This record gives sequence, C-alpha cells and structure tokens, in this order.
Amino acid sequence: MLESTVAAIRPLDEAAMAAARELQGRLTKPAGSLGALEPLSVRLAGLAGACPPPLPEPAAVAIFAGDHGVHAQGVTPWPQEVTAQMIANFLAGGAVVNAFARQAGASVTVVDVGVATPIPGAGAEGPGDPTGPRLVAANVRPGTRDMTVTAAMTRDEARVAVETGIRVAGELIDAGAGILLTGDMGIGNTTPSATLVAAFGGVDAEAATGRGTGVDDETYARKVAVVRAALARHEPDPADPLGVLATVGGLEHAALTGLILGAAARRVPVLLDGVIAVSAALAAAAFAPDAVGAMVAGHRSAEPGATAALRHLGLEPLIDLGLRLGEGTGALLALPVVTGAVRVLHEVATFDSAGVAEK
Amino acid sequence: MLESTVAAIRPLDEAAMAAARELQGRLTKPAGSLGALEPLSVRLAGLAGACPPPLPEPAAVAIFAGDHGVHAQGVTPWPQEVTAQMIANFLAGGAVVNAFARQAGASVTVVDVGVATPIPGAGAEGPGDPTGPRLVAANVRPGTRDMTVTAAMTRDEARVAVETGIRVAGELIDAGAGILLTGDMGIGNTTPSATLVAAFGGVDAEAATGRGTGVDDETYARKVAVVRAALARHEPDPADPLGVLATVGGLEHAALTGLILGAAARRVPVLLDGVIAVSAALAAAAFAPDAVGAMVAGHRSAEPGATAALRHLGLEPLIDLGLRLGEGTGALLALPVVTGAVRVLHEVATFDSAGVAEK
Repeated sequence: MLESTVAAIRPLDEAAMAAARELQGRLTKPAGSLGALEPLSVRLAGLAGACPPPLPEPAAVAIFAGDHGVHAQGVTPWPQEVTAQMIANFLAGGAVVNAFARQAGASVTVVDVGVATPIPGAGAEGPGDPTGPRLVAANVRPGTRDMTVTAAMTRDEARVAVETGIRVAGELIDAGAGILLTGDMGIGNTTPSATLVAAFGGVDAEAATGRGTGVDDETYARKVAVVRAALARHEPDPADPLGVLATVGGLEHAALTGLILGAAARRVPVLLDGVIAVSAALAAAAFAPDAVGAMVAGHRSAEPGATAALRHLGLEPLIDLGLRLGEGTGALLALPVVTGAVRVLHEVATFDSAGVAEK
Repeated sequence: MLESTVAAIRPLDEAAMAAARELQGRLTKPAGSLGALEPLSVRLAGLAGACPPPLPEPAAVAIFAGDHGVHAQGVTPWPQEVTAQMIANFLAGGAVVNAFARQAGASVTVVDVGVATPIPGAGAEGPGDPTGPRLVAANVRPGTRDMTVTAAMTRDEARVAVETGIRVAGELIDAGAGILLTGDMGIGNTTPSATLVAAFGGVDAEAATGRGTGVDDETYARKVAVVRAALARHEPDPADPLGVLATVGGLEHAALTGLILGAAARRVPVLLDGVIAVSAALAAAAFAPDAVGAMVAGHRSAEPGATAALRHLGLEPLIDLGLRLGEGTGALLALPVVTGAVRVLHEVATFDSAGVAEK
C-alpha cells in the first residue's frame, strides 16, 4: 500500500494553474492585492487539476496519538499518562482542538497508533454522539522504544503506522472530506520531531530542538543531548525515510507521514499543524517529492525545528502567532484562510461582469 | 456627540483581566501555548469587564466610502468612478469582501460618506435581499478638496463624518453586533492615509507612503511629494485630531475614526483592516488614548504606513500575508482568530474537570 500510494503522487497540473492565474487577473481587485492567497489558490487549482478547485470542505482533523520510549530520558516534565488523558479530553470535546474544530465546522478523528497507557473511559460507553469526535483503535505498539538505546520501532512497525495514516486519509476522503488537517498528541513528541528535522533537514541537533511545552534550561540541554545521541547511534539516512522513521521517529509521526502521502495521492490538500506535522512532512517529501504540492503550512510553530523544516520544504506558513500547542490547533486557525483563497476564485465578480473600470 | 463619546471611553477592567489570566492557567494546555491568543483573550475580557468576555458574534463589517480631491494630482492610475462602481459591486455581493463576509457569517454595511460620482444602480431597485449588503446614504460632500491646495474639508464637515461613524457603530451594536470590522473604499485613499500616519506617527512622508494598489516609480515619487506638500501646507497638529482629519484626511478616514470611538465607548471590540483603518485608528487614539484597548489589529498591510501606525499604537497584527486590498478583507480573515481566542475561555476544560495531570 505504501509503494502504490507513493507511485500515485504526481506533479501539479500546469494548465489548471495557468487558468487560475489568468482568472485572478480578471477579478475585481488590483492584481496581486490578495498577497499570499493568490499563489495558494493557484497551487490548489494545480492539485485539483481544475479551475476553480473545489472549496476545501468539509474539513477533517486527524489526531494521531502515540507515546515515546525516550520519555524515560527526562525530556519533558509531563507524565506519560497525559497522552491517554488528553485523548479522553478530545473524545469528551474539552480540548482546544475541539473548540477550534467546532468553530471551523471540522470533524475530529483521534487515532491511537501507539499510546502506552489505558485511555480513561475508552470502550466503557455505548455509541456517543455520531457527529462528535471518534476514536480509531490502531495501536501498533504501546509507545516506541527509547531511541537512545535501540531503534524506536522495527521497519515493519513503522510501515504499519505509515499505512494506518494512508488508510485514515482514504477513509476521510471517501467520507467526503475536502481537506485533511494534521493533529497529534504524544507526551515527549517534540524530541523525535527535532531528531527527524535534523535527519531530513541536515540541521544541527541544537538548531532543530526547542522547548516544547516549556522545559527549563536543564531539561532543554538534556533534550539536545538526547537528539544528538539518537543521531549518533542510528546515523539515519534521509534517502531511506522508512528507516529514519523506524529508528528516530514516533508512531504518530509515521502515521502522519502516511496521512500526507494518502492525501497527496488522492490530490486532496493537507493542512499541516506544527513541528510534529512538518517533521512528518519531511518524511513524506523524502518518499515522494511531489507530495509537497498537496501540503499547506498552517502556521509557524514557536519550535525552531518547525521553521527549519518549512524552509527545507519551501513552504511559507499562513499564521504566525507563537502557538506551540499541537493537536491540530494551528492548522484549524489557518483553515479559513485556505477556504477564503479558494472562495475568491468561485465567487468574486470580474471587472467585465461587474462593470468596474480598470486602471 | 463626539465629545460625549470620547468622554465615555474608559480603561480596561483589571479585575476581569486578572480572572482571564488565572483561567488561562487552568485550561488543559501548557501555559502560554496559545501564543498571542492568550493576551488577546485577556484584553477582550478587560474590554467587556467580564471573564469570559462574550463571543464576538455576530460580526458586522462597515465599509465607509469616499473620494479624494488629491486624485487630481495623479497619485493613482485608477479612475475616480471606480469608487462608485465598487460600491455597486459590494451591494451586488461580487467583491472579495462579500465572499469573505459570507464565509465568516458577517453582515456588510456600505456607508457613502463622500463619494464623488453616482453609484450605478443605486435607488433604481426595490428592496433587495434584507440579509444582503445594505447602503447607508450619508454623503457629507462629493469627495474631499485637494489637500495640496486647501484643507480637504472644513472642521464641521470632518465632525459630521466622525459623528456618522459613531452613529453607525451605535446602530450596528444596537442591532446585536458583538464585534465591528472596519472596511473602506476610496480611489486614492492611501495618499491621505500616508499623510495621517506621518502627521500622527511622526514619521517621514517617504516612510509613511506605499505603492497602494500598485503604482509605478514615477507615480510613487509624485505620491510622496504630494504627502510632503500637504504636510508643509497644513502643518497638522496631532494634539488637534479633528483639525488633522479636516486638513489632510478623507471622509472615510473621519468616519472610521468615529466608528472606532463609538465601538470603544460601547466596549465592543473593533477589528482593524489595513492602512486606511490604522491611520484612522491613530486619530481615534489622539481623541481618546484608551480607545486602543478596543482595537484589534487584523493584519499587517503591505503598505509601510500600516506598520508605522501599528508600532505607534502598540498593536501586533494577527495575520501577515501581504494583503493590500482594503474593503475589510484583512479584518475578515483575522476574525476567526479573535473568535477562537475568546472561545477557548468559554469551552475548554480545566485540568481538574478533565482529569488531566499537570507537569
């Protein structure tokens, strides 16, 4: 499934992009006055192979959750149980991602690809609100192994997680989603994110590593040392993305890589959240460089690794408000900008049709 | 009406802000992880005098339209008739502001405070869609006078325009609006905007002046010279904001100043669009420094004067995408960020209520 998905990812459609550029020039506004929204609309036309491209509706957030063996190295002050507790919070609709998803009219799907501890209340209730958040049980293993000691997972485990992401993308698109938004939950997951950015982006461990949910100087120094140790132990080869994910990634990173590849193969845009998403996007681009055409960078996370990854991908983020929460929250805030960019091509009058003089 | 409105503008409520800060610290997310949204939510609590503050719904865009005598100096390649033609486009729902307003669920009110040419089709039809864009006829004079030759308007005309803005703010709030968004239309209006920024912000004419809808080098040089000539002729005194608006402003700038003052007096947030809005915001702050507490900067316009004005006001914009269209488009793109910031205080669970462990 991974190989056929990668093979299905093709370049953007030049004719549709040319048509979108030409249409932008006839709409009742000065040429270029919508700034970054204009090239975004052109690229989404190229992805869809149509001008105008379909409105990116409805939106579906997929939150992949996993735990991390490297938690044992003391890279975060948060207990590992918080991953499972936050999943319960997502399913109850009480997290920030839920508030933003309700506002944006987006569905929320939580996928357990590798949570280490029991999810409070999961399975205890009957069918809840069918329109509410949904849990997909797809646990590959109860958290990764500690990458400073051994590979985080086997190649087979990494492949199963990637293919879970591909499968979720396909199911959401089959159910009608016009855009996928990446979400993530996993205490400790900014550490493998930094390691992936260093491995794929060719940047130093310190430049790729940030303070995550807010660690002190001592924990930060330990985190950088952990990233450096993992890189030294595994010497990950960016030409072998499955190997990189298996040795220094997380289960949610592998699944997000699959979600991105699955969306790109179906020519549906995927709106990236923060550093976990963009580190997975580097893996997706290593599998299939044309997958970048389907990626929209939602926001610039406060994590330095996110900026390094976006630079490597050649993507400019839509929102830059110092967010560092994850869950998909930054992607959800950016969604109206993406929808607005496409809506202009659908709804705005031309100079000719509106009887407005040109300069 | 101007004096009583200014007198009604009071500082933010410190107790409500303290309550919002305390609540932010108990919600299920790392402290500070929502970046700029957290202080924004605190400030809106201070404006409302309540924690949580009301959701900023429904939203109302007020587009003030006027023409400019300085058009005769060749500061723009667009014919003056485009102001009236674009109003017809707004009323027909065909402009970018209409597309973005439909997406955001915002109403659109167009106020003619000084259009110089007949609005195509205006008055010719019967009552249209009552939920569609609405035209308010409040023309003070058919465009300003050429500020390089004489004052743009009399003090009385400026006052009538400011009080029109105050009145529109009151009517929209009385009709239920929870947030006002500034919009503007006026061929040539980036030239008085630059002059207002220079006058109130104490910056040089060249630093305040941009290329507007996209002027060539020769027109740009002429535009800077026009701004410089108007400043030299009138020597506007920032301590006399009505005098500044009258000599070097526009009718839409004066009305926007009133809208902002009217919103601040009613303690309703006002979401600013681009350079026309922020130059009017400088006038509002000169009338009443506490009015800044009600202002939210929607976006950073590509016009350099906008950045100078935002710095002077101490406001950081929410969106920075190189927009330079006006109409209210940048404010509309930022609206979901404002709503999201407040929604968090209403809907997100606390660590305690959700059973999530803290670090």
